[in-house]
Amino acid sequence: MDQVVTQKPHELLAETLSTKMAAVNTLIQTRMASEHAPRIPEVTAHLVNAGGKRLRPMLTLAAAKLCGYAGEDDVKLAATVEFIHTATLLHDDVVDESGQRRGRPTANLLWDNKSSVLVGDYLFSRSFQLMVETGSLQVLDILANASATIAEGEVLQMTAASDLKTDESIYLQVVRGKTAALFSAATQVGGVIAEASDTQVQALYDYGDALGIAFQIADDLLDYQGDAKTTGKNVGDDFRERKLTLPVIKAVAQATDEERAFWTRTIEKGRQEDGDLEQALALMAKYQTLEATRADALVWAAKAKDALNVLPETAIRTMLVDLADYVVARLH
Amino acid sequence: MDQVVTQKPHELLAETLSTKMAAVNTLIQTRMASEHAPRIPEVTAHLVNAGGKRLRPMLTLAAAKLCGYAGEDDVKLAATVEFIHTATLLHDDVVDESGQRRGRPTANLLWDNKSSVLVGDYLFSRSFQLMVETGSLQVLDILANASATIAEGEVLQMTAASDLKTDESIYLQVVRGKTAALFSAATQVGGVIAEASDTQVQALYDYGDALGIAFQIADDLLDYQGDAKTTGKNVGDDFRERKLTLPVIKAVAQATDEERAFWTRTIEKGRQEDGDLEQALALMAKYQTLEATRADALVWAAKAKDALNVLPETAIRTMLVDLADYVVARLH
Repeated sequence: MDQVVTQKPHELLAETLSTKMAAVNTLIQTRMASEHAPRIPEVTAHLVNAGGKRLRPMLTLAAAKLCGYAGEDDVKLAATVEFIHTATLLHDDVVDESGQRRGRPTANLLWDNKSSVLVGDYLFSRSFQLMVETGSLQVLDILANASATIAEGEVLQMTAASDLKTDESIYLQVVRGKTAALFSAATQVGGVIAEASDTQVQALYDYGDALGIAFQIADDLLDYQGDAKTTGKNVGDDFRERKLTLPVIKAVAQATDEERAFWTRTIEKGRQEDGDLEQALALMAKYQTLEATRADALVWAAKAKDALNVLPETAIRTMLVDLADYVVARLH
Repeated sequence: MDQVVTQKPHELLAETLSTKMAAVNTLIQTRMASEHAPRIPEVTAHLVNAGGKRLRPMLTLAAAKLCGYAGEDDVKLAATVEFIHTATLLHDDVVDESGQRRGRPTANLLWDNKSSVLVGDYLFSRSFQLMVETGSLQVLDILANASATIAEGEVLQMTAASDLKTDESIYLQVVRGKTAALFSAATQVGGVIAEASDTQVQALYDYGDALGIAFQIADDLLDYQGDAKTTGKNVGDDFRERKLTLPVIKAVAQATDEERAFWTRTIEKGRQEDGDLEQALALMAKYQTLEATRADALVWAAKAKDALNVLPETAIRTMLVDLADYVVARLH
């Protein structure tokens, strides 16, 4: 589990799936276009070409290939999940007033809120058209439920983020909405179109779910221990934005009265002063919550790998195992 | 066509369909609820209980009944279209900074932009789950395409609204996105679940499309000739918001150079002064564009009624005919 990862598994996946990924990119470009509203490709090109890892569409293609799929609907569903992901980013940008996304200015600094909301809606509708084209009601059911989990998680995050009553189980729901629901839908639909067994489809869901949770916990941990050069974020952004994530939730759970007053002032009331981030980091160190958070991420990565046991032992499966290791390997 | 309408056909429809409408209301309440995110019903109750006419869900129920439908999926689809409608209003409120909606403050004055965007997304996802439950791929196809038309129309409106190059054909596309696409989807899916013939399903689409266009043209006309008490809007709101609607588009098309300079200054550049609205109204009077706009609305209402000819001659059909008259009867 603590092995040194010497190659990047998502790059190996991209190489292995390069023909399909090229088809996904072409389909994204085609469906993004709007004859009537040139603003749409202007806004989306900024995000879609921004050099993201395309992790979610790759998961769909990998899951379908792992289950022996030989058709073309995997490409449609891979584009579907990328559109959903991009639409979610656009809507997040509107509401979070976040300044950076993948190292570029967010859409709503380049464009306006109006464009971000409506173009996001347009991408959702395009994703909806693509998934209907597969003609699979099971796929539609999975993606409808994932959409609801995502939307509910986003709303929950909005109310729970600065509320000290937010515990680990609420955090997990938020993380499922924010990240894991689309990961698990991405892998699950790959199995469904390949007509994999129920056991295998469930295993693909479990893999995506656990991988997404590990990925998000890692992200939240790196906010406190990464450096801006590799993560594109400054240490403590979540603290400054008064977002309760796992390292703080664990510290709040063990807080003395005085410490609790500190968290109430800085997170719930948002009255932050110089030195507060250092104090927050000291409290996390006192209770070793960064170590405990890392341990949780490793447990979820292990769950992801375990889930793959019922799937065929192919090169793709090995890459998916390595991917689960990779998302937590950057943690120290 | 110019008959005096003495009863309100949407009230008669609501009475005739009252059992089903009650089931729709119950379903909306049930599906709106979120165990985990109490903010959701807080935001939506404001809109969903605000006493709208529920025109769109009634259209679905009426279309299904007109085609002899005896099942329960009409209730699900009626709730679906109301959720889509409400979600669209929430997203419109975010971006338009409009101050009034159905005589109440808009959601984003009571709540924040963040809530409006994310709760709108939540309602979209709920509508998606409901339509999947019908198990009809044809229904899903219709609603996916309607969603794309709506989203594309909204983006188009954003770029076209203050651009003097916007002509009647672009206006029509915007109107389809803004209003007619959901009306036509609402009626069409009612026919589809009733397993009506292709001719009848097409007729229901044509009815909804033409009714929606007549409705929106009437709305845009009333912006210049209604009074605030009955419309809840002030005369000239669209002018002040630099929105090109049909009465102005028709005046721009016939403008002298000097008049064109007026429209460029007030609409394109948005440099409005005291007396500009009066000048705009004078130009519309000069070219009789309010009368021409009313004539267009009447033509669309007539098209809506004609479409119904291939459908069974029942009381519901008469109400739908009367409804088409009603949406233009308030024009003078």
